[in-house]
Amino acid sequence: MICVMALRVGIVGASGYAGAELLRILAAHPDLEVVIATAGTQAGTPVTDLYPSLAGAYPTLMLEPLETGALEGLDVVFLALPHGESQRLVPELLDRVGHLVDLGADFRLPAATYERWYGEPHAAPELLDRFAFGLPELFRDRLGPGRSVAAPGCYPTAAALTLAPLLATHLAEPIGIVVNAASGVSGRGRALSAPSLFAEANETVSAYALLTHRHTGEIEHALGEVHGSPVSVLFTPHLVPITRGLLATCYARPANPGLTSAGLLDTYRDFYADEPFVTVLDDPPTTKATLGSNSAQLTVRYDDRTGTILALGALDNLVKGAAGQAVQAANLVLGLPETTALPVLGIMP
Amino acid sequence: MICVMALRVGIVGASGYAGAELLRILAAHPDLEVVIATAGTQAGTPVTDLYPSLAGAYPTLMLEPLETGALEGLDVVFLALPHGESQRLVPELLDRVGHLVDLGADFRLPAATYERWYGEPHAAPELLDRFAFGLPELFRDRLGPGRSVAAPGCYPTAAALTLAPLLATHLAEPIGIVVNAASGVSGRGRALSAPSLFAEANETVSAYALLTHRHTGEIEHALGEVHGSPVSVLFTPHLVPITRGLLATCYARPANPGLTSAGLLDTYRDFYADEPFVTVLDDPPTTKATLGSNSAQLTVRYDDRTGTILALGALDNLVKGAAGQAVQAANLVLGLPETTALPVLGIMP
Amino acid sequence: MICVMALRVGIVGASGYAGAELLRILAAHPDLEVVIATAGTQAGTPVTDLYPSLAGAYPTLMLEPLETGALEGLDVVFLALPHGESQRLVPELLDRVGHLVDLGADFRLPAATYERWYGEPHAAPELLDRFAFGLPELFRDRLGPGRSVAAPGCYPTAAALTLAPLLATHLAEPIGIVVNAASGVSGRGRALSAPSLFAEANETVSAYALLTHRHTGEIEHALGEVHGSPVSVLFTPHLVPITRGLLATCYARPANPGLTSAGLLDTYRDFYADEPFVTVLDDPPTTKATLGSNSAQLTVRYDDRTGTILALGALDNLVKGAAGQAVQAANLVLGLPETTALPVLGIMP
Amino acid sequence: MICVMALRVGIVGASGYAGAELLRILAAHPDLEVVIATAGTQAGTPVTDLYPSLAGAYPTLMLEPLETGALEGLDVVFLALPHGESQRLVPELLDRVGHLVDLGADFRLPAATYERWYGEPHAAPELLDRFAFGLPELFRDRLGPGRSVAAPGCYPTAAALTLAPLLATHLAEPIGIVVNAASGVSGRGRALSAPSLFAEANETVSAYALLTHRHTGEIEHALGEVHGSPVSVLFTPHLVPITRGLLATCYARPANPGLTSAGLLDTYRDFYADEPFVTVLDDPPTTKATLGSNSAQLTVRYDDRTGTILALGALDNLVKGAAGQAVQAANLVLGLPETTALPVLGIMP
Repeated sequence: MICVMALRVGIVGASGYAGAELLRILAAHPDLEVVIATAGTQAGTPVTDLYPSLAGAYPTLMLEPLETGALEGLDVVFLALPHGESQRLVPELLDRVGHLVDLGADFRLPAATYERWYGEPHAAPELLDRFAFGLPELFRDRLGPGRSVAAPGCYPTAAALTLAPLLATHLAEPIGIVVNAASGVSGRGRALSAPSLFAEANETVSAYALLTHRHTGEIEHALGEVHGSPVSVLFTPHLVPITRGLLATCYARPANPGLTSAGLLDTYRDFYADEPFVTVLDDPPTTKATLGSNSAQLTVRYDDRTGTILALGALDNLVKGAAGQAVQAANLVLGLPETTALPVLGIMP
Repeated sequence: MICVMALRVGIVGASGYAGAELLRILAAHPDLEVVIATAGTQAGTPVTDLYPSLAGAYPTLMLEPLETGALEGLDVVFLALPHGESQRLVPELLDRVGHLVDLGADFRLPAATYERWYGEPHAAPELLDRFAFGLPELFRDRLGPGRSVAAPGCYPTAAALTLAPLLATHLAEPIGIVVNAASGVSGRGRALSAPSLFAEANETVSAYALLTHRHTGEIEHALGEVHGSPVSVLFTPHLVPITRGLLATCYARPANPGLTSAGLLDTYRDFYADEPFVTVLDDPPTTKATLGSNSAQLTVRYDDRTGTILALGALDNLVKGAAGQAVQAANLVLGLPETTALPVLGIMP
Repeated sequence: MICVMALRVGIVGASGYAGAELLRILAAHPDLEVVIATAGTQAGTPVTDLYPSLAGAYPTLMLEPLETGALEGLDVVFLALPHGESQRLVPELLDRVGHLVDLGADFRLPAATYERWYGEPHAAPELLDRFAFGLPELFRDRLGPGRSVAAPGCYPTAAALTLAPLLATHLAEPIGIVVNAASGVSGRGRALSAPSLFAEANETVSAYALLTHRHTGEIEHALGEVHGSPVSVLFTPHLVPITRGLLATCYARPANPGLTSAGLLDTYRDFYADEPFVTVLDDPPTTKATLGSNSAQLTVRYDDRTGTILALGALDNLVKGAAGQAVQAANLVLGLPETTALPVLGIMP
Repeated sequence: MICVMALRVGIVGASGYAGAELLRILAAHPDLEVVIATAGTQAGTPVTDLYPSLAGAYPTLMLEPLETGALEGLDVVFLALPHGESQRLVPELLDRVGHLVDLGADFRLPAATYERWYGEPHAAPELLDRFAFGLPELFRDRLGPGRSVAAPGCYPTAAALTLAPLLATHLAEPIGIVVNAASGVSGRGRALSAPSLFAEANETVSAYALLTHRHTGEIEHALGEVHGSPVSVLFTPHLVPITRGLLATCYARPANPGLTSAGLLDTYRDFYADEPFVTVLDDPPTTKATLGSNSAQLTVRYDDRTGTILALGALDNLVKGAAGQAVQAANLVLGLPETTALPVLGIMP
């Protein structure tokens, strides 16, 4: 089904969940063809051993050890690696492939902000400006031809989409913002750790990384760009027993009096009027409605009683929060239709 | 995206899970366009109130009360109704639309078998031969132009696909077969009942309808057609706390000595060699690998120690077990490519 | 095992989840014996048909229709009814039994506050002062001999325990408080409704009753009593796919500078030093650790960066959030040891 | 609360799920006091770091490295170790402590059967007859004073309890038996492995260890003892997304004609009439009804149509399938009331 002229794609880190989701999405892409998929400890394993779900499209694809030479000349290389690894890899790769699309945290933040939240200096700060922050709905004009992409994290995508209409319009104060979010366990990746075990994560809800989650810096940075000046956020992530899905419940203070829920809903609908992957609902969004899709669903309220804006956003952390958004950004930098290969409808129930 | 010449489709019973899944699948169909979707108590409700997941494709679709006149002249009408209802509806509908595709049990069985398992005489036995049993992998030649379709149930689809290679080849005895199956809770539909409540169905496993589940008759009938003579099956369904997914674990006795697991795997691979929606695996299949897809995944073993054949099959009960298979059959009777609009890859993890 | 002198207990509304949990807990109580259990539509059903888990203690207990005469003279009657029903029942029952312990909302609030949040006038306002708010850790001195009890709701219990140390000590401002909570689906009860279905509630997270949840009034009222003056709270409940468990993630503003996480943890440990059912942890609490127990687990932090106090509390909504707390309060008003029959350890994993 | 004369208990392997469950159960035991709890890599960790659920009973208990000298003279030592480890430990421990209760597989089988299923010779075959198979309902007379105990596995406990009435009475053939079982993920223990990850195990059902699961030998051995001659079983375990719970769905062939479901139910009720932890139900058992309890719930049917006996049994794999049963057997060999400290009622919903 792949036409002769398909652009050639590599996936580095294809054994993880974001990598596997790239494979699923790209199988439906008429213009991109995955020609190499690498893994670390899983190199040598057929991809269908890990993901039998992919058998219908990649019956014989073998995960290969990473050799940067093998990626030379590819049109797009997606990097789906633990944070810290791509900044080691990018220097030797950046000028040898058409576009890099990094799903990790390494190229999303200014060097100082990176060091502040990740606790170590950036290894390749001189390359940061080669990457555009790949959140098309907010920064589409940065995703021009030839750019490489730093695809945002799952929490920052949800928080930024949910709060952007308030900060872009200066309806909310840039301080005193709370992002209370819940993520499915796939957000922890496929790495082995006790909190990721079914028996530990099932039938429980808990917060983690209190006050210190690294995505805080990214949320503040993205919203600061939208607002035009610094934004301060207290971010509390929670783990909930779902495989996929992320809900951001956000609280903000009004910059001026006179807000209403109806008015805020209008603001949100206007703000996202032309976005194929954002739906503004009257009702509270559910993560279920976004399962497997590249869509985000939002709503907003103003609480007159306490003087607080409440905004909520839901998405699939592995699609709009990772692989889907990466493909969306790749489509843009490649000059392809932005929605190519990206499912809009969630799987429900 | 729908071209002017699209065939016009109605869905009767669009508020239920199979109906909603038809809407999801058909949204990607280039040749079919849903022009009417009906519901019972939910008539008057926008479909996105029930399924916000569909907002990206059906932002304004309203569920309408069923009026058969409004269906007149449609190219295809899918019926997704509780059993017993379509046999009342079909007589006035059958000759007024191009094709009927019934997802219920009413037109799957001979009249006597229907009465045996459903406890009441069939209301329209004279129309039974207008419907072909819509399991393409086993009965594709019956799905010719102009036929209406009785799409099989979720358990019969899984059991028949899992056991057919053994019975078609007469490798297994037609008696002493056990089908021990587990289904996700969506198989119970969207109707309100205590066993479908989250707090009742979560964190538990149990069997139900011991010895008497109505799908027994359908499993025996389908396998009997494959085998060429009657087949007897003890079927034990279980409810497991997953939303979608169905696994059939089947036990059969060898008709002759000399079987091996390797030989049986070859038999299965040959049997399904040309089937786009059936994958034979070396490893045990998981329902997760089929989520959201129209695929079934199978494996088989021979236990020399006890002289038993063990065959397993997994699928998504709402896709290959309902809406996906219905579209697959509709594609065939309409003369369209069989795989049109049907996802092959599951969503995993 | 019940001794001859056991106090005689009735449970009105024993078919629901809180009622069944009362049966489970009271089976281990040496001083209380359940002699009658009533139900509405389930009257006439053996309790083990609904809860086979109770077979070991109540093999022959039949749910009976409610006749107030049959309750006459009982030492304690627990009412586990939908809100609005007990205020109709209490007037004829209050002086005919030893103690009433109402698990519903009817006698928890002042009449005006009740009307504000429940949208209708209270039917028996003159009886409100016969009931003590049954949250022993905060209002133990109200639970003296002869009192009847209005056991608090699940969300108010969690929110009040989590925030009380801050408000009792005036470390936090009484305005600008956010309670962002998540509850398991059993909190919706055993009534049939679409959002309670497994296929609807599983694999999803969503907020509900935005700005308007009735427990808001109860949270504010309880905290106001602790603080000594009115407290204002924005409460956002979420539904998460667990059967039991409730987590309150609370945000408050400091009343004075100089807070630290270590200092707040000390404050919490002092505040609850003598409480057998409250544990203050260094780590974030998980609902799983409280499953089946009457315990609440808490932690607290001060975020210097944004000037916000973050306090979290977890409990089992059917035990400490309902039946367990009701028994704890009953023990107190009966002059029994407060911890009798109440499990302290959660079931984990 | 522990009296001065309490017997002194050690738990070797207390960081795992069975070990933690021993701690939970023994906290309520009036005659036993845990004085030491050891772990491997988790040595040095407070037990409440792993299981905050235990904070109310073991606020300061530290997991210690295993030193056999420290166990010298204890009245009971429970071993909750991966299979293969206790046979190394037992030789130096057996005569230095009052009783050993081994929850592993090492001392459950005759040496030859052990080697057949575990693929290596037993390291201490001369000590096998010091251990009694600790399934009280079937082999209570073996659990006399002074005996050490090999507590059976979760699957064998469920299968043996479910099938024993048929084999003890010779109502079923000892060949052609199928045990189709489903277990919660805690059955895999707390060890890190990909199939135990939430994102892998959630929302899926699959069989594993086809034809070769090691518990097959133990099921056959236990049932052979009940039957008085060898029994042959095909055992197919499945993993289902619940934390705890195990359901065995068993198929057997009648030894003689004339069976009925009613007659079989009577046989089962008679067989278990005096057993406090076994309930025979008319309805299919659910694992949920046994959660957290030491109870097993069973039912049975005869299918006249296919000539097959269908028997089902449910239990909590960590209680009746592990720690609870171990305490039950310990009570017996210590001469204490068999039911001491063991919950009979499940937590439901």
